[in-house]
Amino acid sequence: MIKLFYAVHTCSLASHIALEEVGAEYSTVRIDFASNEQRKPEYLAINPKGRVPAMVTDRGILTETPAMLAFIAQSYPQARLAPLDDPFAFAQVQAFNSYLCSTLHVAHAHRMRGHRWADDPFAIAEMQRKVPESVGACFGLIERSMLNEPWVMGDAYTICDPYLFTLANWLEADGVDPANLPRVIDHRRRMSERPAVRKVIAEELA
Amino acid sequence: MIKLFYAVHTCSLASHIALEEVGAEYSTVRIDFASNEQRKPEYLAINPKGRVPAMVTDRGILTETPAMLAFIAQSYPQARLAPLDDPFAFAQVQAFNSYLCSTLHVAHAHRMRGHRWADDPFAIAEMQRKVPESVGACFGLIERSMLNEPWVMGDAYTICDPYLFTLANWLEADGVDPANLPRVIDHRRRMSERPAVRKVIAEELA
Repeated sequence: MIKLFYAVHTCSLASHIALEEVGAEYSTVRIDFASNEQRKPEYLAINPKGRVPAMVTDRGILTETPAMLAFIAQSYPQARLAPLDDPFAFAQVQAFNSYLCSTLHVAHAHRMRGHRWADDPFAIAEMQRKVPESVGACFGLIERSMLNEPWVMGDAYTICDPYLFTLANWLEADGVDPANLPRVIDHRRRMSERPAVRKVIAEELA
Repeated sequence: MIKLFYAVHTCSLASHIALEEVGAEYSTVRIDFASNEQRKPEYLAINPKGRVPAMVTDRGILTETPAMLAFIAQSYPQARLAPLDDPFAFAQVQAFNSYLCSTLHVAHAHRMRGHRWADDPFAIAEMQRKVPESVGACFGLIERSMLNEPWVMGDAYTICDPYLFTLANWLEADGVDPANLPRVIDHRRRMSERPAVRKVIAEELA
C-alpha cells in the first residue's frame, strides 16, 4: 500500500489529489513544516532532500512531484490520468508539469525560501519583492498559451490539473492579481468542485 | 524528422546527446544567446518561453528537458534509454531528472540569470555569491545518495546520464570543487568517452 508524506499548503497536494482520483489504497503522514519536521533525521531517512512530497511504495520510495504524478497515472491506467499510449501527448503532459516544477514553483519559492539562494536579508527581501512579477509572468504564459478547457489538456482530465490547481492556490498570497487570469481562476474553481479535491483538502486542513 | 533548437553551454545538450544515442534522424538549429536570439519573435513563435531546448516533431513542438528526454526514450524503445515497462523504475529515472531541472539547474541559474528573481544589483550579486554552496549541496546529495555505477541508474545507461553530464560540465564555473565529487567526476569522464557525446560536443562547439 502507498504511504504519502505531505505537508499542508505545499505541492504535495497534487500527488494527494491524484491518489484520490485514481482510487488508490493509500495512507498519509503529515509532516509539520512549522516545527521543521522535514529536516529531522526520521524524515531525512525517508527523503534525504528534506522536502515533500515523498511516497513509500512496495518497491521503494519516490520523490519529485512530476515523477510521482506520472507514476500514479501509469500504475492506475484505468483512471486515464495521462495519455499513456501516445508518447507525444504524454510528453505534452510532462512538459506542462516540468514547467510548473522548474519555473512556476521556483518563482514562488523566492517568497518564503529565498535563503536557498542568498544569505543577506536585503537580498532575500529583494527576491520577495519580485515574486508578484515573476510568478505573475508564469501564470500569464499559462493563461495565454498553455491552458485548454475545461482541463489543461482539453477534454481529458490529467495529472496536469491537480498540479496547476495546487500552485494556483498560492497566487493571491504571491501578490498576483487573479483578475488578469480568468482562465486560470476558472480552472481552479472547476477543480475545487471535484469530489476528490474536496475530500483531500478537507483531510489536509482538518 | 525532428528538429532540435539548442544553444551552446545550455541544458539542451542533454536532449542533443539523447537524440544521437538513439540514432534518431534529426537536424539542429543553433540559437545564439549572445545576441539574445531566444527572445526574438522568430524563436518565440517556436517556444513562447524564450528558452532552449525546443524540439519540432511531426506532431508539434515540445519543450522542457525531462519531457523531451522521456519522449526520446519512448519514441526509440529499441535504444532502451529508460525502463519503459516498469512504472516504478521509470519514476526513479524521472525523479532524478526532475531534481536536476527543478533544484540543481535552478541553483546554477542564480549565477547568470539572477535577474529572473531580483532586480537590485546587490541582490543579484548576493545570489551569485551563494552559487558555489547551493550548487555544491546539490552535487553533494547526488554524490552521496543518488548516483550508481557505472551509470546513474546502475548497469543501464538511461536518459539520466546525458542530463547529469550536461549539468556536471558547469560545476567548476559554478565554483564547486570537483575534488569533493569523485563519483560525479568519474561519471562525467565516462560520459565524455562515449562516441555519441564526443560527436555532439564537436558539433556544438564547431
